[in-house]
Amino acid sequence: MEYTIFGESHGPAIGVTLTGVPAGVELDLAAMEFELSRRATGKNKLSTARKEADQAEILSGLFEGKTTGTPLTLIIRNTDQHSKDYSQLKTLPRPSHGDYTGSVRYAGCSDYRGGGHFSGRLTAPLVAAGAIAKQILAQKGIFVGAHISAVAGIHDAVPDPTRDQRELLRQVAQKDFPAIDDQIGERMQQAILAAREEQDSVGGTIRCMVCGLNAGAGTPDVDENAEGIFARHLFAVPAVKGLEFGAGFALADMRGSQANDPFYMDDGTVRTRTNHSGGINGGITNGMPVVFTVVIRPTPSIAREQDTVDLSTGQNAKLSIQGRHDPCIVHRAVPVIEAAAALATCQLLGI
Amino acid sequence: MEYTIFGESHGPAIGVTLTGVPAGVELDLAAMEFELSRRATGKNKLSTARKEADQAEILSGLFEGKTTGTPLTLIIRNTDQHSKDYSQLKTLPRPSHGDYTGSVRYAGCSDYRGGGHFSGRLTAPLVAAGAIAKQILAQKGIFVGAHISAVAGIHDAVPDPTRDQRELLRQVAQKDFPAIDDQIGERMQQAILAAREEQDSVGGTIRCMVCGLNAGAGTPDVDENAEGIFARHLFAVPAVKGLEFGAGFALADMRGSQANDPFYMDDGTVRTRTNHSGGINGGITNGMPVVFTVVIRPTPSIAREQDTVDLSTGQNAKLSIQGRHDPCIVHRAVPVIEAAAALATCQLLGI
Amino acid sequence: MEYTIFGESHGPAIGVTLTGVPAGVELDLAAMEFELSRRATGKNKLSTARKEADQAEILSGLFEGKTTGTPLTLIIRNTDQHSKDYSQLKTLPRPSHGDYTGSVRYAGCSDYRGGGHFSGRLTAPLVAAGAIAKQILAQKGIFVGAHISAVAGIHDAVPDPTRDQRELLRQVAQKDFPAIDDQIGERMQQAILAAREEQDSVGGTIRCMVCGLNAGAGTPDVDENAEGIFARHLFAVPAVKGLEFGAGFALADMRGSQANDPFYMDDGTVRTRTNHSGGINGGITNGMPVVFTVVIRPTPSIAREQDTVDLSTGQNAKLSIQGRHDPCIVHRAVPVIEAAAALATCQLLGI
Amino acid sequence: MEYTIFGESHGPAIGVTLTGVPAGVELDLAAMEFELSRRATGKNKLSTARKEADQAEILSGLFEGKTTGTPLTLIIRNTDQHSKDYSQLKTLPRPSHGDYTGSVRYAGCSDYRGGGHFSGRLTAPLVAAGAIAKQILAQKGIFVGAHISAVAGIHDAVPDPTRDQRELLRQVAQKDFPAIDDQIGERMQQAILAAREEQDSVGGTIRCMVCGLNAGAGTPDVDENAEGIFARHLFAVPAVKGLEFGAGFALADMRGSQANDPFYMDDGTVRTRTNHSGGINGGITNGMPVVFTVVIRPTPSIAREQDTVDLSTGQNAKLSIQGRHDPCIVHRAVPVIEAAAALATCQLLGI
Repeated sequence: MEYTIFGESHGPAIGVTLTGVPAGVELDLAAMEFELSRRATGKNKLSTARKEADQAEILSGLFEGKTTGTPLTLIIRNTDQHSKDYSQLKTLPRPSHGDYTGSVRYAGCSDYRGGGHFSGRLTAPLVAAGAIAKQILAQKGIFVGAHISAVAGIHDAVPDPTRDQRELLRQVAQKDFPAIDDQIGERMQQAILAAREEQDSVGGTIRCMVCGLNAGAGTPDVDENAEGIFARHLFAVPAVKGLEFGAGFALADMRGSQANDPFYMDDGTVRTRTNHSGGINGGITNGMPVVFTVVIRPTPSIAREQDTVDLSTGQNAKLSIQGRHDPCIVHRAVPVIEAAAALATCQLLGI
Repeated sequence: MEYTIFGESHGPAIGVTLTGVPAGVELDLAAMEFELSRRATGKNKLSTARKEADQAEILSGLFEGKTTGTPLTLIIRNTDQHSKDYSQLKTLPRPSHGDYTGSVRYAGCSDYRGGGHFSGRLTAPLVAAGAIAKQILAQKGIFVGAHISAVAGIHDAVPDPTRDQRELLRQVAQKDFPAIDDQIGERMQQAILAAREEQDSVGGTIRCMVCGLNAGAGTPDVDENAEGIFARHLFAVPAVKGLEFGAGFALADMRGSQANDPFYMDDGTVRTRTNHSGGINGGITNGMPVVFTVVIRPTPSIAREQDTVDLSTGQNAKLSIQGRHDPCIVHRAVPVIEAAAALATCQLLGI
Repeated sequence: MEYTIFGESHGPAIGVTLTGVPAGVELDLAAMEFELSRRATGKNKLSTARKEADQAEILSGLFEGKTTGTPLTLIIRNTDQHSKDYSQLKTLPRPSHGDYTGSVRYAGCSDYRGGGHFSGRLTAPLVAAGAIAKQILAQKGIFVGAHISAVAGIHDAVPDPTRDQRELLRQVAQKDFPAIDDQIGERMQQAILAAREEQDSVGGTIRCMVCGLNAGAGTPDVDENAEGIFARHLFAVPAVKGLEFGAGFALADMRGSQANDPFYMDDGTVRTRTNHSGGINGGITNGMPVVFTVVIRPTPSIAREQDTVDLSTGQNAKLSIQGRHDPCIVHRAVPVIEAAAALATCQLLGI
Repeated sequence: MEYTIFGESHGPAIGVTLTGVPAGVELDLAAMEFELSRRATGKNKLSTARKEADQAEILSGLFEGKTTGTPLTLIIRNTDQHSKDYSQLKTLPRPSHGDYTGSVRYAGCSDYRGGGHFSGRLTAPLVAAGAIAKQILAQKGIFVGAHISAVAGIHDAVPDPTRDQRELLRQVAQKDFPAIDDQIGERMQQAILAAREEQDSVGGTIRCMVCGLNAGAGTPDVDENAEGIFARHLFAVPAVKGLEFGAGFALADMRGSQANDPFYMDDGTVRTRTNHSGGINGGITNGMPVVFTVVIRPTPSIAREQDTVDLSTGQNAKLSIQGRHDPCIVHRAVPVIEAAAALATCQLLGI
């Protein structure tokens, strides 16, 4: 299953074209809408006021409620477009956003309105595609779930990575603010509001688990190793600047005797007592949950005045971004990371 | 330029097949041998006594000293093979190694001797391929270099990520132990020796920089975004369990106002005052050095007795790994990470 | 530039998603509509009465009249759908059509109405994508044109394959029936009408030329050789059952001394006196026009009663296809072959 | 399963790197040697005197006689090299060979000796790879076989394309001159000898059948349709200038009522009474034998003096090719076409 995300924030529509979808999957469109609603803005006081309808229309690849196996294209019309808000982006690129690099890459022809093809809005079709992937995986007993593991230096509870945590993560997915520990979640939200007060933004991390995968998926080779496959999909999510499996960067400070996950037999199944490897050895799944963490950078669009350059004059300039912007996107990114992980898992399994 | 690494640790040969090599590149074979020697074992007291000759033979794609543009295959014959050392690996998989997962993935048919295709030895052809990539990049003024940024919790000096550090990193590449600060390097080596004394191993991190890249390489899309391209090549390096760009996971604790890299004009060129983004915005290079860090797990092969399972009996078992093993591979992995990064940079530039 | 054609004949829409479109190409939408009109039915007495509007809407990748370089999705809504006409296709597959194989391939879930994803209607978005490719090529002085070389055993005039025939083929493209020799074209049309009278259909061949290509595009290797690249795109056109370059199958009866194309210098340029090789040697263009011919099978949908099987009962059955069907699609396929060739040429040139 | 053919005719070695080989296939190396011997020259009076040993050495991916599933590289050392014979190729390109185009494509750096990477010798590793593919397919009951269908205008007998012809084609494969009808084969050989007498060469066609394929492999889409997959592999074989499936170009002269293959039930299986479609409808196999024909151009290397250009002076020139050359390669190409078809079939089946 491969996908192409298309569209610009203020163009006619955004969407995704999926190829290699297995035939005969009964799509639960309500479940897809639920995933889109998890990503949607306007849900609570943390988000921007801009309301996105995100009504997905499936144009192809679906017949009598089931996937046909032929390419599936899904679109979401853009409706709430205030193009005039963004006119200064053409000449004054926002720091750490794609405005400047997009202008260079696309020879000044990219659609700069609202970030264009670089907009976080493009994650909506990704979530829709991920919803399809999740339904395919569910038929094989595989679950993908995530939670906010940190925001603004405040860390959520850590679920035991050697256990199948689908019950816990299903509950988390129902929350408006998907942290495991609600008290910690409340503190995270306070930190986000504080940042907004100061015309600033915060970042965080998301921990994701893929439960129910058998041992033996992946290879040690480039383009086939399990970690590389997850990385391929995850680094395409805007704002992701890092990815680690299992104990990840903490392995740098560990001894081999701590870091190694000892094998044992559990009722006929090979398992490991710890899961510092994140369910992957030698690029191949080992039957334990696949666990990884991504870092989501603080939203680069902040209200504070910032230094930038004026591309039309070649001079230094000041930028004040108008309009409302999310002071944090970590909570909204949770279903996006799940979607990317679900699509990665399908690829890993040759779906 | 694409590559396939082939071979098993105790098979006839290991090697690499490269396609899409530009025609007419005069290959400096001595430079390639130098890169292989940086990776080679047996160089100092930190490494195993096993001596690897690593004589590379180019079988195709080279004519009168220049690349022909047709597929280039390079092999390294395996000469120092003590297959009997490894017989127990067939049934007693080493924790956190690819023995068990490889056995499942390849239906019990993988070559288990010395780790087979999972062996760290397979990084030798990767280094050779990377040496070719480096020479191609050098013609375009692009340099790829790295250093040990941490071992066993001891951290090296941090070079200014907003500057072209090729002079510094070229000096580091000449060292037997490639840390920037030799005193810190000495402490790292002591920590490694201490781990070996205790029949254990340590991990660390490697920081890599790509200098001389213009703005505008990459796209925000899957398979084309700069971060994803680096990830694709880096996660195929054994022992890499995490990857972060710029400030990476530290971004989780930063405010947007800190994390954003303000633009300024520097003698007609757009630059950023900080480089927390690691030279990439929106999946596209911004003209600043590309900076990333990978974590290298502690060597899973340790002398201490470990818990494992016996795949032939389905019972829990104990494993004592015989022979000498590296208590740390971080220093040897530095040229490997550079090689993967050089190959990634070629892909990013459409080479 | 890669493309995915999506849609089903009687679904909400058909379309194409293009990636890798160069940024900054001013799209001539009228030229695209002209190409679509060349393919459209309902134009003359030869075609079915069903009128296809084929209004293309570009959803993404276009801004202020120019391509943005980001993925471009174009859709054509399906409007004229008589789904009840096709209900028998579910159980009675049409001989030599994709009904039976699609049913097997897609586990009985393919959209059988009007041929679904197998419908010739899916060539409309291909033509639209090809129109974009043609405009990109035109900027480089490259022209792609074709003509009906044979229908029902009646052969059109053969243009000199050693010459740039763009003027001739531009004129042909303006015709309702795109043969070079109008008298021959008239005889072809008579043959088509005669077949329809007899509730039958006819096939033919299309000769295509790519003019203005420099020497040196392609390689001898799989996936990169020029012939293979054209084949990749052309065999995806429904009804194409054969492809030959230059003299093609006639080479089987020639001596080497006849078949070889002697080189000569023409005002500083290497050219060949004949072009039996179709402009390609060793998988690489030689600077002469690329010339190839495809065979288009007779339309499998004919009014005559045919033998088939009933997939619901597993019994032999008779099939009488209702509705009007094209007795020949060769003339409508001319712009489709051009489109596929234009997309192939872009790939060949690394666009 | 993907493959990269590497090497130059007069370099150290030629070979192939295969990825995605299923694990656990017991390789019959004698069968591989037999396939190589079918391709080898020096077997009868028709071929050049140059003897090619073609001893294949498998460097990786094989352990204890079985494939490991990891990349398999196989090399054949070049031993019989008379490089001085070819020195004039550097400046005087042979008509209709890759000398000129290779020189342009590879910026004058290609290895011109003996055709270098363009040499027909490169089909030896293709045959070896195909032998592995054949053994994998045989385990699934699938057979790939071919015969010379025409040489110099003389046509072999045509086997019934609706029947599994593996018995017949197995016998043909044992022959020195693989035509079905030995008397016709004798006449073909006479024609070849006559051409050689006249310092000329002849071409021909090869018909190939894939027997035992189930219905349902392939899709109508680019890169997935069965015809395109065969084309991808076949057009990478040097000297192939055309490819047709089933009745192929003869379909141009047929009516739909003749061309259509009526379905019928045969003991519970859907079959067709004729096989003009070559076993493929809508890009998907229909369960009948896949049948296709390729045209092999006359060997471009002929002893007669030919017109060419001198690339060093930019003047017209005369070329007399020294040394012995095959007056026909069609009979030697039969196992090459089978190999390419076997590799294509593996791809079609997702192997």
